[in-house]
Amino acid sequence: MRAVDIIQDKRDGKILSSEKISFFLDGYLKGEIPDYQMSAFLMAVYFKGMNKEELKIFTETMVNSGEVIKFEGINKFLIDKHSTGGVGDKTTIALGGLFASFDIGTAKLSGRGLGHTGGTIDKFESIKGFSFPETKEELIRMTNITGTGVMPASDKIVPLDKKLYALRDVTATVQSIPLIASSIMSKKLAIYTDGLILDVKVGSGAFMKNIEEARGLAKTMLDIGNSFGRKVAAVLTNMDEPLGLAVGNSNEVIEAIETLKGRGPEDFTELVETLTAMALMIKGDVKDLETGKLKVKEVIESGKAIKHLKDFIEYAGGDPNLTENYSLLPMAKKEFLVRTENSGWVSGIEAEKVGKAGMVLGAGRATKKDIIDHSVGVVLNKKTGDEVEVGEVIAKIQYNDDKNLNSSIKFIKEAFKISKEKVLPKKVIFEIHTINI
Amino acid sequence: MRAVDIIQDKRDGKILSSEKISFFLDGYLKGEIPDYQMSAFLMAVYFKGMNKEELKIFTETMVNSGEVIKFEGINKFLIDKHSTGGVGDKTTIALGGLFASFDIGTAKLSGRGLGHTGGTIDKFESIKGFSFPETKEELIRMTNITGTGVMPASDKIVPLDKKLYALRDVTATVQSIPLIASSIMSKKLAIYTDGLILDVKVGSGAFMKNIEEARGLAKTMLDIGNSFGRKVAAVLTNMDEPLGLAVGNSNEVIEAIETLKGRGPEDFTELVETLTAMALMIKGDVKDLETGKLKVKEVIESGKAIKHLKDFIEYAGGDPNLTENYSLLPMAKKEFLVRTENSGWVSGIEAEKVGKAGMVLGAGRATKKDIIDHSVGVVLNKKTGDEVEVGEVIAKIQYNDDKNLNSSIKFIKEAFKISKEKVLPKKVIFEIHTINI
Repeated sequence: MRAVDIIQDKRDGKILSSEKISFFLDGYLKGEIPDYQMSAFLMAVYFKGMNKEELKIFTETMVNSGEVIKFEGINKFLIDKHSTGGVGDKTTIALGGLFASFDIGTAKLSGRGLGHTGGTIDKFESIKGFSFPETKEELIRMTNITGTGVMPASDKIVPLDKKLYALRDVTATVQSIPLIASSIMSKKLAIYTDGLILDVKVGSGAFMKNIEEARGLAKTMLDIGNSFGRKVAAVLTNMDEPLGLAVGNSNEVIEAIETLKGRGPEDFTELVETLTAMALMIKGDVKDLETGKLKVKEVIESGKAIKHLKDFIEYAGGDPNLTENYSLLPMAKKEFLVRTENSGWVSGIEAEKVGKAGMVLGAGRATKKDIIDHSVGVVLNKKTGDEVEVGEVIAKIQYNDDKNLNSSIKFIKEAFKISKEKVLPKKVIFEIHTINI
Repeated sequence: MRAVDIIQDKRDGKILSSEKISFFLDGYLKGEIPDYQMSAFLMAVYFKGMNKEELKIFTETMVNSGEVIKFEGINKFLIDKHSTGGVGDKTTIALGGLFASFDIGTAKLSGRGLGHTGGTIDKFESIKGFSFPETKEELIRMTNITGTGVMPASDKIVPLDKKLYALRDVTATVQSIPLIASSIMSKKLAIYTDGLILDVKVGSGAFMKNIEEARGLAKTMLDIGNSFGRKVAAVLTNMDEPLGLAVGNSNEVIEAIETLKGRGPEDFTELVETLTAMALMIKGDVKDLETGKLKVKEVIESGKAIKHLKDFIEYAGGDPNLTENYSLLPMAKKEFLVRTENSGWVSGIEAEKVGKAGMVLGAGRATKKDIIDHSVGVVLNKKTGDEVEVGEVIAKIQYNDDKNLNSSIKFIKEAFKISKEKVLPKKVIFEIHTINI
């Protein structure tokens, strides 16, 4: 078997056998097949794709390139919710408490933020004293006790993905549905949960710019999950504007807490209710989404959800009283109110620009080495569909250092599109796709 | 400017500016852009092609990557005939004498053989004492004195092509018309001749398997030549069977000599007459092909053509008497006559297999390090369209070592296709394309 023949087969649109896929990927991981052959192969995949059988083997070989976490000894029904990444996405923080209310365990590896999108790990680290499990055993113990197990992503899980991603990044082969799908799914499948919910973000601030692309990615990921016998569902959600109002770290933790108290922004509340209802369907507790969502409202009203989040924060070393006293979280010293210069209706809020407005203040990282200021960020005052008058506040900037304030204001102003004609609010949930649930 | 953005532009089918093409190619030659980015780029070119403007810049950058030979002080109208490579192609040997008969200088760099196709340099080296020019100055002197200037291809000419070709070879990006065209044309354009004739071989034994591909390649090369202001013509010729009858080295020299004596095989004679007539049109000596071919017949009959070949052999250090006494050339010790087991008409002779039948005897190289035995080879006794009876000789194998005789016989038998229905002989010339001639 020769690497060049495998590249040629893919170039010519042939279906690759499992032997060929394993030979190529294993050879690459071992360093026997060089980067220049892999990059030509990846570009051929960009143009010719992979079918279901190829993707199963491709993903399986990725999974087996590193450590696999099986969660032996866990006493809960486990669900991993994965988002493809967006601005203002504090979903994991809120879901932990909600899932735990239904005896569903969260078990996931989360990332740190880079560029205009934040990371769940960074958001939790807003909490003084908070520390994550460092081993598989610690993760299992945390999940058993609090219902919520979150650990920073490890290099030991799917090392092949890390190597491939670095190469794709510099060879214009990132934007390929089968490569994106196998990259995400390999990391999800390396962790044995009972169910998997994929939140595929769609819009200007997301990786998938339009609904067709997002649907293609969702369906490909469902197919992969299904070929591994996993219960998996996907939801396509709006990222033409940030999720919720808060974009930062401390402020996102607060928004997640508020939501578990029943006082969250409409779109974010709708999303966490839907995701939890989907989890209840996967677990088999409810037959339909509406019944699920009613149950979610109940655990929010009863205070059960917020209680579980408090338990989780306490277990991780944080002060649970912060859910009642937000000043226990890092707070920015100064605030600036951004006002609109036009009247009309908000027709869109470019999520990427809002993300950058926070990043320049220190809420995110431009490069991997940057240190995060958890206290700063942006809180939107208006969302798409809201009517605004000249001089009205559209967003609040929370900052410590004057240096990058102007740059942040500029990003916010550029992000807001104001229309003279009436605009309707954006739906947060576009579509739900499931297989075998 | 970033390499990854240029790859992405090509991936997305955008037209690359001359700055981007130069940046990418120059960066690669200098080692600033790594192989893995170039191979992804080449695969994107495989799928998305290059337009005329891109190809001009691409080829120009290739040409300028190395030494350029301008032939200052040459006193002849210079024509370079290039073949895309086939089996039994001894055209350059015969053309030198014919061109010189019309005061047209041959000026070309030739290659050595690899795989099933032989190389002109190897064929000339059948002649004892024969030595090639080693410098530009020696090449010019040889051309001025004998009319024929042939030099082994040099690494100093278009070094970028050498680097790119090695990468294409292992990344399944060889078979791309714009890449093939720019590779060939850059090497031709680095040598300043007055006219260029491209012999594009078509068929099972050639790089281009069908007429559409060959036509695409020819037209792309004509466009490139034209964009450089060169007089250029292309001819599509048959490689569904070997050219002429002899396949080897000594035996091909003999066949070229016989052809200059007017006793060559029909197809090979037709090809050299046509190519020389095309050269006369490019030079402006004749207006049409038929008049040109009549002139060619005259110089063959008059003995002028063979006289020029003798002068060339003598200048290069060989014994000119070999044109009358073939035993002065290396001769194989043994012969084996291959006989057909079927009767009917020859419907095809797979050129690649005939090439391999010679190669296993030592007439060609399986790897670059192999040493050639100039005396061995195959001489066909039948060509497509000939009628054969059971037991009739279809080919003669000239060999020294019994070791690989059976393998050679097997290749010959596999090469010959015998049909029960009458088959017409194959035309050697399929199409002629010219620009600005």
